[in-house]
Amino acid sequence: MVWLRNLVKSPSVRSRLKSQNTFSPALLLSPLHLISSSLTTSAAKPPAGIEFGSSLGPTADGEKPRVVVLGSGWAGCRLMKGIDTSVYDVVCVSPRNHMVFTPLLASTCVGTLEFRSVAEPIARIQPAISRSPGSFYFLAQSRRIDADNHVVYCESVTDGGARDPLQPWKFEVSYDKLIIASGAEASTFGIHGVKEHAIFLREVSHAQEIRRKLLLNLMLSDLPGVSDEEKSRLLHCVVVGGGPTGVEFSGELSDFIMRDVRQRYAHVKDYIHVTLIEANEILSSFDVRLRHYATNQLTKSGVRLVRGVVKDVGPEKIVLSDGTEVPYGLLVWSTGVGPSPFIKSLEFPKAPGGRIGVDEWLRVPSVQDVFSIGDCSGFLESTGKPVLPALAQVAERQGKFLAGLLNRIAKEGGGRANTAKDVNLGDPFVYKHMGSMASVGSYKALVDLRQSKEAKGLSLAGFLSWFIWRSAYLTRVVSWRNRFYVAINWATTFVFGRDISRI
Amino acid sequence: MVWLRNLVKSPSVRSRLKSQNTFSPALLLSPLHLISSSLTTSAAKPPAGIEFGSSLGPTADGEKPRVVVLGSGWAGCRLMKGIDTSVYDVVCVSPRNHMVFTPLLASTCVGTLEFRSVAEPIARIQPAISRSPGSFYFLAQSRRIDADNHVVYCESVTDGGARDPLQPWKFEVSYDKLIIASGAEASTFGIHGVKEHAIFLREVSHAQEIRRKLLLNLMLSDLPGVSDEEKSRLLHCVVVGGGPTGVEFSGELSDFIMRDVRQRYAHVKDYIHVTLIEANEILSSFDVRLRHYATNQLTKSGVRLVRGVVKDVGPEKIVLSDGTEVPYGLLVWSTGVGPSPFIKSLEFPKAPGGRIGVDEWLRVPSVQDVFSIGDCSGFLESTGKPVLPALAQVAERQGKFLAGLLNRIAKEGGGRANTAKDVNLGDPFVYKHMGSMASVGSYKALVDLRQSKEAKGLSLAGFLSWFIWRSAYLTRVVSWRNRFYVAINWATTFVFGRDISRI
Repeated sequence: MVWLRNLVKSPSVRSRLKSQNTFSPALLLSPLHLISSSLTTSAAKPPAGIEFGSSLGPTADGEKPRVVVLGSGWAGCRLMKGIDTSVYDVVCVSPRNHMVFTPLLASTCVGTLEFRSVAEPIARIQPAISRSPGSFYFLAQSRRIDADNHVVYCESVTDGGARDPLQPWKFEVSYDKLIIASGAEASTFGIHGVKEHAIFLREVSHAQEIRRKLLLNLMLSDLPGVSDEEKSRLLHCVVVGGGPTGVEFSGELSDFIMRDVRQRYAHVKDYIHVTLIEANEILSSFDVRLRHYATNQLTKSGVRLVRGVVKDVGPEKIVLSDGTEVPYGLLVWSTGVGPSPFIKSLEFPKAPGGRIGVDEWLRVPSVQDVFSIGDCSGFLESTGKPVLPALAQVAERQGKFLAGLLNRIAKEGGGRANTAKDVNLGDPFVYKHMGSMASVGSYKALVDLRQSKEAKGLSLAGFLSWFIWRSAYLTRVVSWRNRFYVAINWATTFVFGRDISRI
Repeated sequence: MVWLRNLVKSPSVRSRLKSQNTFSPALLLSPLHLISSSLTTSAAKPPAGIEFGSSLGPTADGEKPRVVVLGSGWAGCRLMKGIDTSVYDVVCVSPRNHMVFTPLLASTCVGTLEFRSVAEPIARIQPAISRSPGSFYFLAQSRRIDADNHVVYCESVTDGGARDPLQPWKFEVSYDKLIIASGAEASTFGIHGVKEHAIFLREVSHAQEIRRKLLLNLMLSDLPGVSDEEKSRLLHCVVVGGGPTGVEFSGELSDFIMRDVRQRYAHVKDYIHVTLIEANEILSSFDVRLRHYATNQLTKSGVRLVRGVVKDVGPEKIVLSDGTEVPYGLLVWSTGVGPSPFIKSLEFPKAPGGRIGVDEWLRVPSVQDVFSIGDCSGFLESTGKPVLPALAQVAERQGKFLAGLLNRIAKEGGGRANTAKDVNLGDPFVYKHMGSMASVGSYKALVDLRQSKEAKGLSLAGFLSWFIWRSAYLTRVVSWRNRFYVAINWATTFVFGRDISRI
């Protein structure tokens, strides 16, 4: 029978028939039927309780030295972009295969921009990762670092859904240079219920969840028999945290309400409201004049600014420290970031705030060949320098600096593990703040070009700033494809309004 | 304190303080805290075991008669678009707030098109639904029809996620005219494991799931230590069903593999394969010349065509009726459709195949004011006409016809419930097939302009057909916004390739 012959020609069947691999019965029991590649064996002993089946072993003579990057945020991606792949192989370990253009994430929650317009695949940032035989991207979390043996222990990431029966697959990756750039985690300040009920705004999946929830609540509130009280609760959007993310999200929400909800959800338009809760002042890092401007602008757009401290979060209401209860339908939490459990678990010296401590060349000084950049790292107190703020700008500048440093080290013969001791590192990393930007909705934005909070300098607010804000982002979005899409999305939103299909 | 005053001004708190509603303690226990609107009470008794709390009661004198549409597919949406909203109020009950442009859905699975480009919000198709005081869209499933009392019983739809603690909210909607257009369901032919392990291709969420799974498997197969056998399994994409959907999806997949996987997943490109399994012939409704063309084209693109019958589906392999086992990583099921449980539950006379039986004016003849269109309906045997195929083309033509018929009925004074008996209905619905189209990948498509399987007529295959195929779809996508986006997506894919970020 033809179809049977066809089928036996299939590679899966063929490979089974011809398979020359040695099957290990123990490993065959794993749901993935993965078997050890047996190409390399690691000198490092796996930690107790975790079995590591396979590895990407130490690089051999004749191979390029291997740079392993943990994370794919601003810091890690800028570094990978700048690495000279003629002297290094690059391996990226990250739970997402793309970089998120975080400053535009708030715009995707209400459909001003599409989700894909703010996600840049790593393979586009550093094409070697998908083409070069020694460079890889691994969809995985790093679990432990053995700096003495230059090995990272990793665990694959899956959805964990019903149709996804795969168990995490554990493996080791040896490195010549390791860059820890795995970022930080949203802070909950230990407040009960935040993780269960609030949505953060750090990943594309968060923005997707916010959008689905917002549209769900708009539709539920229009069902027959829903009380006025319940409509008001469902359509009360509460944002906790008055930094740039919280302010920009509030501004986008009010734009969405004023333009799109009024038109497309006319029945319930009078019930939707936005409240921004901040313990101190909104946009505290901005010039005082800009802060006032933002406050006025947000209030004019219908955003209620509330000064308060959240004490407890329930599924339908939050409780403030003085006992006031605030019912809500959507709760977005953007109160800043702190170290992740992985960063906390590392036994390196720490900088103030629990970040990995680095010297002025962004090295972890207690060990060889380990560097750290971005939100997960900070200058050690011994450097006499302050820990830099958790900003995309800082991470991106550090990534660029470190790529240059690593390229220099390789050219001076220090690319391989334990060979960089005597290399001249050149000038240390110095951060110069280029200013801050935040949009506040209604085609208005703030641009603060002062170099620090105390310094004097140019600060702008209004439509011109909004125009600068858009242009600046448009030119900084990484690929031409996404620049093009962001421009198209903005133009479409302007002409047709925001898309409200809940997909 | 200012913030406290601000907070008490919030509508949710205010409405609680001022609330004039009568609270029913029993209803307050429901997680939604929904209370009966008590505006209307229905004459109909709810079915045992289901409590219906609220209702949109019968239309009163002075109000427009109400057309209730169940479903938002091709049939329902085309009908709503054509309804004269100066004579009718329109209420749509559907679990999704958008129409899916199904012929282009296969293209979204691999990123040729974006998901939103093929979803059209109902509010854009019929703006009255979100603006007119008596017209509504309800995110809900219809559960039961009481045709004697002109009432539909509905239940709200939620995500059911961890952060979505809402219970389904039950309510009733009275109608003057009811249109059942809730579509059909993918057929599994009772084969074990299909529902659990295969992905259908009927909704945007299915296309999203296929895309996530495909990208997950591409990344998992690149992890260190994965055996050749497991790589082949993970990257074996099996499509069951050789109708237009299955063929178009296979063609899109092979395009994706030949262009994008080779470039962006170079390490594993030799392991990915597509198999299309069909029990009979592929594209059986097409001209024999076109079928041969499609077979050659697919084979040339690397799609393995297998004739076989699936007996059992497991999480990692399917078993064919002769016992052959086919390991797979992604399984897409597109073997046609059958009646949904809701349609099966209705006690109306049925057409062959279990669909709701209608007369030549698309009326359900046993009751007053009930119509049915699209995949869920078929001509009664007594009409002497064959049941029409489950095609977008048929559904769209029926929706257009019925909109005209309802408008005519209203103008002749029969818009209200039980008043249309003596209205002259005009000509009955006659279906004239306009031809079929299917793309097969590699910028090739089939266009079959014959009016039926036996008739003679024009049939084309190749690049010109592909061009006609694209143009035809581009002009039929409902809104200018989506026409624009589809064109932009196609152009971007051509220039930059497909996006591979797994978001």
